[in-house]
Amino acid sequence: MPSIKVAILGFGTVGEGIYRILNERKEEIKKETGHTIDIVSILVRDTAKERLATPGTRITDDVQEIFATGDIDVVFEAIVGEEPAYSYLSEAIEKGCHVITANKTMFAQHGPALLKHAAFRGVQVCYEATTAGGVPIIRTISGLLPTDRVRRIRGIFNGTSNFILTKMREEGIPFEAALHEAQVLGYAEADPTDDIGGKDAFRKLMILSALSFGRQPDWQDVPIVGIDGVTIEAVKDASAGKLRYRHVADIALDENGALHGSVGPVLIGPEHPLYGVDGVDNAIIVDTDHLGALTLIGPGAGMYPTASAMVGDLLQIVGKREAVVVTS
Amino acid sequence: MPSIKVAILGFGTVGEGIYRILNERKEEIKKETGHTIDIVSILVRDTAKERLATPGTRITDDVQEIFATGDIDVVFEAIVGEEPAYSYLSEAIEKGCHVITANKTMFAQHGPALLKHAAFRGVQVCYEATTAGGVPIIRTISGLLPTDRVRRIRGIFNGTSNFILTKMREEGIPFEAALHEAQVLGYAEADPTDDIGGKDAFRKLMILSALSFGRQPDWQDVPIVGIDGVTIEAVKDASAGKLRYRHVADIALDENGALHGSVGPVLIGPEHPLYGVDGVDNAIIVDTDHLGALTLIGPGAGMYPTASAMVGDLLQIVGKREAVVVTS
Repeated sequence: MPSIKVAILGFGTVGEGIYRILNERKEEIKKETGHTIDIVSILVRDTAKERLATPGTRITDDVQEIFATGDIDVVFEAIVGEEPAYSYLSEAIEKGCHVITANKTMFAQHGPALLKHAAFRGVQVCYEATTAGGVPIIRTISGLLPTDRVRRIRGIFNGTSNFILTKMREEGIPFEAALHEAQVLGYAEADPTDDIGGKDAFRKLMILSALSFGRQPDWQDVPIVGIDGVTIEAVKDASAGKLRYRHVADIALDENGALHGSVGPVLIGPEHPLYGVDGVDNAIIVDTDHLGALTLIGPGAGMYPTASAMVGDLLQIVGKREAVVVTS
Repeated sequence: MPSIKVAILGFGTVGEGIYRILNERKEEIKKETGHTIDIVSILVRDTAKERLATPGTRITDDVQEIFATGDIDVVFEAIVGEEPAYSYLSEAIEKGCHVITANKTMFAQHGPALLKHAAFRGVQVCYEATTAGGVPIIRTISGLLPTDRVRRIRGIFNGTSNFILTKMREEGIPFEAALHEAQVLGYAEADPTDDIGGKDAFRKLMILSALSFGRQPDWQDVPIVGIDGVTIEAVKDASAGKLRYRHVADIALDENGALHGSVGPVLIGPEHPLYGVDGVDNAIIVDTDHLGALTLIGPGAGMYPTASAMVGDLLQIVGKREAVVVTS
């Protein structure tokens, strides 16, 4: 049985999580797919840095060294930011590799181009981990699409913002104190601008828009409001009226087929499915023709949820052990 | 491009839904899979009954007439009750057909045997529609399993019971009146015993147990309590304390690897993810090693949600247009 040869680009939290899961779940993966997974190379920024031991795996800071061997089947990308991630993945696709990414900034912008390129080269691009971490929203919507039609997608796509709003409400502390707590706990980046300003949620909304509707709206037509303007007084007033602030990204098709998107804080009552979604969780409500509303709630980030979603993508690519034979 | 030849066993609400979706979404399915779907035969109880016109499709009340042609790739089963459904599907598998079922009563009992038989014959058994209607819980758990471990599954698996509890709370009416309303609206069967007595939820729990843990507990070890003992006074007392009754089926692995299941009414507070799940919706919370909790909420029944889930199963079986090539 041939082994699947993989490379991991980026060896931060998520990259290391991929490495760990591929090793910890070796037997289950082999049982499920019939293949062993061989981690051939890992791309790092600094080869001198001390890190998890990876016996038998080439560690390099030169991506060309990885591509030069010509034997990689699947590339995992867990780098941050548009470049060089986009260039690396374009090259991987051109060389006939399947690619799996967790890079939302890159994918919101370049996802449609990567998918087109991959279709042309006969390989797959998987991106479950770009949106809502461990919540399998990409797979769920992909599974619905051939038999159903998505009308609207809305939800909480940024765990940091949701954590901050939750802390403000539960502990009666102002925005800055809640942000500081999120940073201390590692839920917020040193530069939290994209999280609290709404850009991160916007990017995930654009990824889901491309998947669900086959297109994105013009980015400048989507108003983006962050949670940085939500005062503790406003949160207390809301609580007094049994309401909660949630940071909601929302996109819907109107009856003329036009897309309308928005990102910003919304007041929610106790009967709303997003009312109880606290802390760093993400939640997505998908409205379709056949289902009415389908809601998914789960961890929006974290090493294992994210890496687990990416290894799940690998299993989608490799497929089940028994190839399905259509008899006619 | 070869067509996929399918038979539909049972032409009630769900069977008709399958027929409609396969026709309405012909183009999308062809685009997604590269195949056209040819509905060759439909098994009905009474050939004389007036029904939806199905030009080009053989309508018969004799299942042997369907199997005799020997050209069926996939059998959809949308019959009620253990038999003759189990015998029909066993025969279909023996003849090399993939099977797709919505029959929870049959599958809770005979699912493990059917899956074993199918593995031996090299065909697939899909059963997304047996549990929680349009909520893709089977696909979601299947996708998690190779990289994660399920610890506990709990949720609201019976829409009729949830509708009745919701009506009792919202309208202050007693159990019998709420049941009557469910029957008038078509949410409850003429004989609602299995729904309100908890057996239907129990069966779905057993299906999820077999999938998630590879086994079911001894059925007699799982206490099953229905909602028929929940009085309007108890519902009002709960509301006064900001609590709600939910009918919850629950199964968990303990630290020794033993399974503990239960089915019955539970009091839930406002912060619980099941608190806001009203009406005929179903909800499932899956606890895993990597994800913590993943929650799915959506329609638990209905012609289009159920039929749509079954056609989704067909697409899983047929696979994507581009076969995935592993290069090494």
